[in-house]
Amino acid sequence: MQALIAIDSFKNSMTSIQANQTVATAFAEHDIQSQQIAIADGGEGTVAAFLANEPGGETVTVDTVDVAQRPIQATYGYFPTKHLAVIEVAVASGIQFLDESLPPAKTNTYGTGLIIKAAIAHGARKIIIGLGGSGTVDGGAGILRALGYRFYDEQQNELMMVGADLARVVKVDQTAVLPSLATAQFINASDVTNPLTGEQGAAAIFGPQKGLATANVGEYDHAMQNYMRVVTGQVSDHLGDGAAGGIGFALRHFLGAQVKSGFKLIAEISQLAATVQQVDFVISGEGQVDDQSFMGKVPIQISELAQKAGKPCYLLVGNQKGANQAFAEHGVTAVLPIVDHVSTLAEAMQQGPTNLAKMADRLARVLAANH
Amino acid sequence: MQALIAIDSFKNSMTSIQANQTVATAFAEHDIQSQQIAIADGGEGTVAAFLANEPGGETVTVDTVDVAQRPIQATYGYFPTKHLAVIEVAVASGIQFLDESLPPAKTNTYGTGLIIKAAIAHGARKIIIGLGGSGTVDGGAGILRALGYRFYDEQQNELMMVGADLARVVKVDQTAVLPSLATAQFINASDVTNPLTGEQGAAAIFGPQKGLATANVGEYDHAMQNYMRVVTGQVSDHLGDGAAGGIGFALRHFLGAQVKSGFKLIAEISQLAATVQQVDFVISGEGQVDDQSFMGKVPIQISELAQKAGKPCYLLVGNQKGANQAFAEHGVTAVLPIVDHVSTLAEAMQQGPTNLAKMADRLARVLAANH
Repeated sequence: MQALIAIDSFKNSMTSIQANQTVATAFAEHDIQSQQIAIADGGEGTVAAFLANEPGGETVTVDTVDVAQRPIQATYGYFPTKHLAVIEVAVASGIQFLDESLPPAKTNTYGTGLIIKAAIAHGARKIIIGLGGSGTVDGGAGILRALGYRFYDEQQNELMMVGADLARVVKVDQTAVLPSLATAQFINASDVTNPLTGEQGAAAIFGPQKGLATANVGEYDHAMQNYMRVVTGQVSDHLGDGAAGGIGFALRHFLGAQVKSGFKLIAEISQLAATVQQVDFVISGEGQVDDQSFMGKVPIQISELAQKAGKPCYLLVGNQKGANQAFAEHGVTAVLPIVDHVSTLAEAMQQGPTNLAKMADRLARVLAANH
Repeated sequence: MQALIAIDSFKNSMTSIQANQTVATAFAEHDIQSQQIAIADGGEGTVAAFLANEPGGETVTVDTVDVAQRPIQATYGYFPTKHLAVIEVAVASGIQFLDESLPPAKTNTYGTGLIIKAAIAHGARKIIIGLGGSGTVDGGAGILRALGYRFYDEQQNELMMVGADLARVVKVDQTAVLPSLATAQFINASDVTNPLTGEQGAAAIFGPQKGLATANVGEYDHAMQNYMRVVTGQVSDHLGDGAAGGIGFALRHFLGAQVKSGFKLIAEISQLAATVQQVDFVISGEGQVDDQSFMGKVPIQISELAQKAGKPCYLLVGNQKGANQAFAEHGVTAVLPIVDHVSTLAEAMQQGPTNLAKMADRLARVLAANH
């Protein structure tokens, strides 16, 4: 038997590559051959997935800053012959840098801007930016500053463009913008369709999980409207602008970025759909599947490909929430939770690779007995 | 497809009958036909298994006492045309009656003896006694007293024969023994092979889980030796005598009981082995499988039958401890744990039926996709 294995990361437990390898090793013991495709959705693991699926890439490490301007080192993926850089917003502007002293009013995406600047200096002409996992709500203004945009308040003071500056900004000056931006092509890897402002906007929907007090959402949204009006002349509800706390907006409006699904970008370069056709069955999964999974999460995108190809598809997961039938309607033959005894979340995550290997082994035995 | 479903009880969550029915219902949704066999190992569920598998049985309720002589009502199974009674020791002498004020020194099996006496009065000539789940370590002396045996100390005082009396007994008087005992046939349903005394004896092995302080094990074992010497004239190490705190000994020595595996008794009346031959695959399971399972627990006895018949066998379980391969060597195609998300033991037990139905549904889907 031939399997395609394309499992999304188990957050804080296994990367996609580790999960795939774990299952492939278990399958090999039962003479099931595997093709592995590292997968991601534009968030964590996007760079690793590109490097795993596309030959000729390398990892580049640069000096930058985090959400609170503290110096850090971060990496991005670079394909020299294609002049292609793949950057994850999370590595410098991710939610992992936050603590309760850092609400959105005090943070920005300047660090991500520095990485983009460095990639362009390194030779990049096409830049894919994975928007998942961001911890900021700055409308992408931090990135713009790093690329040469200048923002001022009414007293002509230059602003850092942390969240609190969104309400103060009255002018943007583009005279110092990096000239090489003009010839760079940007692609946002994102599945988010929220606009920048309003009830479905960045502050309302993503603010609270980044530390914005619910009581301040309305005021913050007004500030974001001010920012958008100052820099574009109007407030619009372009879908996708709200991605990553408004990075979607900044990259679209100022840098002409296209938006593509992170999953689809990786599916294309890895020839995922063609590989599904070649195998007997498909394995995907991630740390948890639930009702949210049907909103375009990676495992369900893969099961739908399997369904189109008429192949069985098994999702190996940490937690399953939701009925089997709901998953079946999206081409999932069976969701197979990997926990095999009562355990705490911490134990389950620590035992993730062991439990995954064991469940893959069980599945291989069931398939062998029924082949 | 045709399945045989014979799942042991999930302790404190589902009986064998409930578990079987849950899986059969899930299978029916996927056009898998099921034959259900209620199963037990001589412990909890033994009477229910006999009544489910053998026609013509009824439940009889009698007044008796618990391990501390407190009045209770208890039930046993009775098959009038066969004059067969099936009694579980646990219903009157079970571990569920204990609290920390009731160590083995203060308890006995008198209540079980009263049930036996009532069954004989009811017409029973063949009595199967399930020895699982007992809470006493009285060498079966309480049962003997209820049947007319009299025990005395050195001052000719009659003894109640709670555990503390084992050290005091110097004489047994059989003149008042129930005459009808002579024509009754006893079968102990038990898989326990421990002797009554010594390092592998009832006090040493089963005492601590019934509240015997580890420091008192040696003294208690000496008392048990005294009892055995007084009533038989010698101390022997007959295997199986240690079952149920020594009930095995009393029923063998005084009542001529045969010992049979509880599982095998039920397998015989239910024609389990013949049914395995008729189906496409076999389902068993219980609350937990682990290293102990290979010591003759029900699910492994069933998987070994399936192995001999060349049929796949799936164990649906709450907890799996131990490697898949260890189970495979006993004919288990796959152990399939039913928990599908991180949960506490209490949650897992409360959600047992839901989780079992969901896992059966998953398995049915996998089998359908590979049939």
